[in-house]
Amino acid sequence: MFTYRRRVQFAETDLAGIVHFSVMFLYMEEAEHAMWRSAGLSIADPKSDLAWPRLSASMEFRSPLRFEEEFEVRLQISALKTRTIEYACTIVRDETIIARGSMSAACARKLAGGVMKAAELPAELLERLKNVSR
Amino acid sequence: MFTYRRRVQFAETDLAGIVHFSVMFLYMEEAEHAMWRSAGLSIADPKSDLAWPRLSASMEFRSPLRFEEEFEVRLQISALKTRTIEYACTIVRDETIIARGSMSAACARKLAGGVMKAAELPAELLERLKNVSR
Amino acid sequence: MFTYRRRVQFAETDLAGIVHFSVMFLYMEEAEHAMWRSAGLSIADPKSDLAWPRLSASMEFRSPLRFEEEFEVRLQISALKTRTIEYACTIVRDETIIARGSMSAACARKLAGGVMKAAELPAELLERLKNVSR
Amino acid sequence: MFTYRRRVQFAETDLAGIVHFSVMFLYMEEAEHAMWRSAGLSIADPKSDLAWPRLSASMEFRSPLRFEEEFEVRLQISALKTRTIEYACTIVRDETIIARGSMSAACARKLAGGVMKAAELPAELLERLKNVSR
Repeated sequence: MFTYRRRVQFAETDLAGIVHFSVMFLYMEEAEHAMWRSAGLSIADPKSDLAWPRLSASMEFRSPLRFEEEFEVRLQISALKTRTIEYACTIVRDETIIARGSMSAACARKLAGGVMKAAELPAELLERLKNVSR
Repeated sequence: MFTYRRRVQFAETDLAGIVHFSVMFLYMEEAEHAMWRSAGLSIADPKSDLAWPRLSASMEFRSPLRFEEEFEVRLQISALKTRTIEYACTIVRDETIIARGSMSAACARKLAGGVMKAAELPAELLERLKNVSR
Repeated sequence: MFTYRRRVQFAETDLAGIVHFSVMFLYMEEAEHAMWRSAGLSIADPKSDLAWPRLSASMEFRSPLRFEEEFEVRLQISALKTRTIEYACTIVRDETIIARGSMSAACARKLAGGVMKAAELPAELLERLKNVSR
Repeated sequence: MFTYRRRVQFAETDLAGIVHFSVMFLYMEEAEHAMWRSAGLSIADPKSDLAWPRLSASMEFRSPLRFEEEFEVRLQISALKTRTIEYACTIVRDETIIARGSMSAACARKLAGGVMKAAELPAELLERLKNVSR
């Protein structure tokens, strides 16, 4: 399991005084990218022709999160398939569960004209992601 | 079914050249609030002590959406319960399905100190939402 | 002068109950892009190798803007130079001035590897922008 | 001078492949709030009836910032007046200047019904801010 720590920023709150639910998806994604970096990878490597479009994302919200609170995103790879990656996460403030979420992404090759084509995860990337999520 | 029309704004895109997936949840929520307005309601009425914290949100992404494209959010109330509302939506550009999503919200009463307590949907609000989603 | 109409969305507010100041810059930019569309132009035309990086942006905030309020961005081109465009805008709700802002953008040509090089505004674009801001 | 360190997140970029200019204002504000925390203060203290609405914000953009780049916001209080605070900042990546900005905020007392009234900076707060910006 990979742990990403963060503090709530002012502009992430809404008029209800709590973090807007859409921002929780940003937190999950930030954790994903930090996990990749810890594996020596980048989700948007300028030297690579791979992209990782999202297939799905979902979250259950248990408890609100407020300005300046510190929290953790606990992220793990729940499935590593030939062409897709699935993640599961829990967002936690101290011992309080804020949200539980999941997300899946496809491996895609960028072609000319902005078109993307499904591709297989390269072997080295697969190996690195297996190691980081162990 | 309620239909909300919108155009993609520049800042909603990311370096992959498409709308960031978290923004799709904003589109779903904007449609919800427009549906409420069409029923003569506001999700954040300054004169009301009710709030509508989200319980869950999920989305499947089928096709990318790009800058300046026009799209529709087709939103319906899939369940109207004593204390919760459930929505289902499809985001569509012309005949192309961009995403399918769902979201649920609880009815809560705002108490002193920012605390919220689960509450029942008021009868008049229930009636208005039933009419708009028919 | 070009007028762009909009309604405040929920996620654009912060815990102070008003639109976050950074969002006012998004409103100014949305108006710019709507002005370009009204001139038959796109600020991010996939068929063009031009980009419009911002050189500066500034705003004075006079009055708060709240959820679901409708407002106007009144935008004009204050200077149209060989290599840059300058805008001035007023954001207004009914007769109340919300903010006054300005922004400038450079004309740049996209080269290989994500590099950008200052360029002159094409004659046809100059003509169209002159007409829309008259 | 106060230094705040950060890394660019994916959703902060736009289709031009660089950080959207509006996000630079978020970076400046995050640095402000971190400076307040380092002085033992919160810009949105739940126990205080003070708020800090922005009066103005401006920025000049010198160089683009890209995904995963690390940068610093160097923030200082340029003027500490009876009723307002003025900040100046430089956003820097290694030795490259990304942007120079300024921002001012008013001290306001929150009254009933969401109304705000200009107020004087409390003496203790003034003292703490003087110390942190020295």
